[in-house]
Amino acid sequence: MPYLRNCWYLAAWSDRLEAGKVIARTILDEPVALFRGRDGKIGALEDRCPHRFAPLSAGKVNDVGAVVCGYHGLGFGRDGVCVRNPHGPIPSALKVRSWPVVDLHGIIWIWMGAAEACDQKLIPDFSWFERAPSTAKSHDEILSGGGGYDLYVDNIMDLSHTDYLHADTLGGGGVAFSKPDITTTDSWIEVVWQSRDAHPPAMYPRMIPNLPELVDLTLRVRWFPASIMRLDGEVRHKNMSGDDCHRAIAAHIFTPESEGTTHYFYAIARNFAEEDEACNSMIAEARSRIFRTEDKPMIERVHARMEGRDFWEMKPLLLRIDIGAVHVRRRLKKLIEDEAGRRLVLAAT
Amino acid sequence: MPYLRNCWYLAAWSDRLEAGKVIARTILDEPVALFRGRDGKIGALEDRCPHRFAPLSAGKVNDVGAVVCGYHGLGFGRDGVCVRNPHGPIPSALKVRSWPVVDLHGIIWIWMGAAEACDQKLIPDFSWFERAPSTAKSHDEILSGGGGYDLYVDNIMDLSHTDYLHADTLGGGGVAFSKPDITTTDSWIEVVWQSRDAHPPAMYPRMIPNLPELVDLTLRVRWFPASIMRLDGEVRHKNMSGDDCHRAIAAHIFTPESEGTTHYFYAIARNFAEEDEACNSMIAEARSRIFRTEDKPMIERVHARMEGRDFWEMKPLLLRIDIGAVHVRRRLKKLIEDEAGRRLVLAAT
Amino acid sequence: MPYLRNCWYLAAWSDRLEAGKVIARTILDEPVALFRGRDGKIGALEDRCPHRFAPLSAGKVNDVGAVVCGYHGLGFGRDGVCVRNPHGPIPSALKVRSWPVVDLHGIIWIWMGAAEACDQKLIPDFSWFERAPSTAKSHDEILSGGGGYDLYVDNIMDLSHTDYLHADTLGGGGVAFSKPDITTTDSWIEVVWQSRDAHPPAMYPRMIPNLPELVDLTLRVRWFPASIMRLDGEVRHKNMSGDDCHRAIAAHIFTPESEGTTHYFYAIARNFAEEDEACNSMIAEARSRIFRTEDKPMIERVHARMEGRDFWEMKPLLLRIDIGAVHVRRRLKKLIEDEAGRRLVLAAT
Repeated sequence: MPYLRNCWYLAAWSDRLEAGKVIARTILDEPVALFRGRDGKIGALEDRCPHRFAPLSAGKVNDVGAVVCGYHGLGFGRDGVCVRNPHGPIPSALKVRSWPVVDLHGIIWIWMGAAEACDQKLIPDFSWFERAPSTAKSHDEILSGGGGYDLYVDNIMDLSHTDYLHADTLGGGGVAFSKPDITTTDSWIEVVWQSRDAHPPAMYPRMIPNLPELVDLTLRVRWFPASIMRLDGEVRHKNMSGDDCHRAIAAHIFTPESEGTTHYFYAIARNFAEEDEACNSMIAEARSRIFRTEDKPMIERVHARMEGRDFWEMKPLLLRIDIGAVHVRRRLKKLIEDEAGRRLVLAAT
Repeated sequence: MPYLRNCWYLAAWSDRLEAGKVIARTILDEPVALFRGRDGKIGALEDRCPHRFAPLSAGKVNDVGAVVCGYHGLGFGRDGVCVRNPHGPIPSALKVRSWPVVDLHGIIWIWMGAAEACDQKLIPDFSWFERAPSTAKSHDEILSGGGGYDLYVDNIMDLSHTDYLHADTLGGGGVAFSKPDITTTDSWIEVVWQSRDAHPPAMYPRMIPNLPELVDLTLRVRWFPASIMRLDGEVRHKNMSGDDCHRAIAAHIFTPESEGTTHYFYAIARNFAEEDEACNSMIAEARSRIFRTEDKPMIERVHARMEGRDFWEMKPLLLRIDIGAVHVRRRLKKLIEDEAGRRLVLAAT
Repeated sequence: MPYLRNCWYLAAWSDRLEAGKVIARTILDEPVALFRGRDGKIGALEDRCPHRFAPLSAGKVNDVGAVVCGYHGLGFGRDGVCVRNPHGPIPSALKVRSWPVVDLHGIIWIWMGAAEACDQKLIPDFSWFERAPSTAKSHDEILSGGGGYDLYVDNIMDLSHTDYLHADTLGGGGVAFSKPDITTTDSWIEVVWQSRDAHPPAMYPRMIPNLPELVDLTLRVRWFPASIMRLDGEVRHKNMSGDDCHRAIAAHIFTPESEGTTHYFYAIARNFAEEDEACNSMIAEARSRIFRTEDKPMIERVHARMEGRDFWEMKPLLLRIDIGAVHVRRRLKKLIEDEAGRRLVLAAT
């Protein structure tokens, strides 16, 4: 699947980029050197020195927040302009490409699209994650997972897979047997799965003492372009009313590395057992294990079985459970086509 | 080398596919899910669910002998028709390709060709292997060996290599110095190597006590299309007459995985020391070691040195020892061309 | 970068090819079997038997100095002509390509170009290495390093990188701040870096007791086509006059394996602490570590960042420090074009 460019992508969890450090990350096929000065300010530069093409990520961040190439010592500021040449004067052409980055609510967002379209207000709200107490949340990442970002998005848009791929942990709740409801707006697409008097996900009774055998379940998955998803899960029993429920909100955010590989960033926060560190660790560990040993391998197998062919040309036999994924695929296709159209218009004027 | 399709290929040793299990195997570039129900019946389906392309081999075999996809739970019977959709009605188009399989004499055979040409009588007779006592036989496999199936067939059709590649074990018998005789029929091609008063293969004196220093040797290699071979080896000394001899029959069966990789299935049975388990283990171990550390690496090196070029275009300087291999290559070429011709005729009518 | 063919390449350090041994080495994309008979004489043959394409390097050297194929026993002499066929008469066409090789001053040189242009006098003089006492020299190699040979040559032609890539060992001497001088002749190109009252390279005080804090440094790098380099380094202090100095001469010799991989052969000899074995080991160990963990990874990263594109088409922003490398690149380009031109003339006559 091609890329949508005019949208924000998660470049890194903010706490994974320490002050004075530079890391390499490929995003939408572009090599990016992501760095943070000692003053905490971040930058994103093309990860290739214009002198002799060494990756800037193999260098260091100096005292004034410039990235110094590890091969011959040229230094570049956050705007990509060369600020240091120990071998002579600085040629005015000596600069690298830079991308806008924003450090917000624990996430470093990057804009890989047209500069004139860049708008910080387009960043979906993840303040809920920042607000949650530290013992009631966790986050992690899988870098360079096999498979395009569309397959990762499909996986979350169709949660019926939990009953089969995660039967012992996230499955068991009868989600697969419920009919998904869909809501679309200009900004997002949401799919909702509801079950009444259903078995809760298999790992829930271990987290919530005295949970009844049958509960009401709601799973609400909201997608924002291009591949940002929030999953709001509610478990409710007879003694609960109104807004009262066991709630867990998860982020599933996918950043295309290349057409065939994807960075998977995930986080979760909950409103129950909020001070229980053991519960928190158990959830964090379980999710990392599940995504690494169940979702990622399955998506990689699907990717391998597609042998580089286009999803629609393979004529998938879609079912009712695919409704959310199909809506997202159609929307993405339209957004990407619109974007290409705008580029054509700009080029012609 | 292209593939001959209208012939039987060894898909798996029967005892390697347990009841209730499904395994993945690529055969002639096709991904195959090979499975066995609890009733022992086997099936071979395209290893790609038509819903979202997950490999069926990542799923399970259920109680009624259907393969259930591990991603979203669709189930398929041995004929490839969907028999289970937990998410709603079963669309009539929901099916996968299936191939004929036969479980005979310890071997699972698969037919990758035209359905109308499928004929169980074309399976070469390996009942001798099933009949041999368990202490007088062994079998094993090397999956995904580098090199096309033609190089593996060449290797067995020209046993003169044993004196060089296997000097310490199978060689030493002077095979290389004898002139091979060739017999061809419509069904098979046979090459025979005979030596009188020759040193037996180096490992024989360890297996047969009191073997004279010089013996008469006969090695009879019969090839069946496309890549099935039986090697009948006789060691005879002065005190033996008529049919009396030390005899070992081996199967060397090659199944193309792709143009550049091959599955190697091998077996051996003998008429001497038939109840000697230590001898049996010694032979099994030696053969696995020899094929893995001598034949396979040499064929992989030849394959690498050919750099993807056609065998004949490289103008090999063939010798007398190549007569069997050359006959087989010519026959295979003709069979493949005839098969393509028949497809053209069918397409035109 | 294409290859210059009419020049000598280092095939192997002489002491790495024992009598009676054959080794495989890919040079300029050609598979070479390099061997030495028990009489010490060396040969270089195409590493592919003309019979069935087995690599001759998987065989053995026999008593008369022929290479015997490990697959079917054919033997070839140093001129490539078949001298042994255990299966019958020797067809006159049975031969392989051979290349001229010369064993000189501890180096096995190979000529991959036109036979009529082959001239031993074109071998640059490395007798200094042979003459140095064994406790004052060392040599080693990195085979199949990532990156084309041009990137490896650039690396030595621009020693300003030592202050950044090797800050703790070879750098620190202020080389980067000096202006390089260039000398060109028909046979070689030399770049000289000089610094007065500079800090010596960081590891020098550990090797030379009582070295003053500031010294005069001269680094003289002479390149011979296509990728042979001698680096003459002098450290001089106030009490030294005339030719008196701490001197170390290094060889950096690059042999293209393929367009994207290079064999790196390096050696060093010195005129100080000549009998100090501990110093000798320290230098040998440090250089291997530096080249393996600093130069090679950096060149491999540059190679990766170039993504297969041409150096000039990427429009590198060159600086004063690149003068030597640019001269070499231009000279090489011209030599390669002249060579291609001569081949066209020969083909037309």
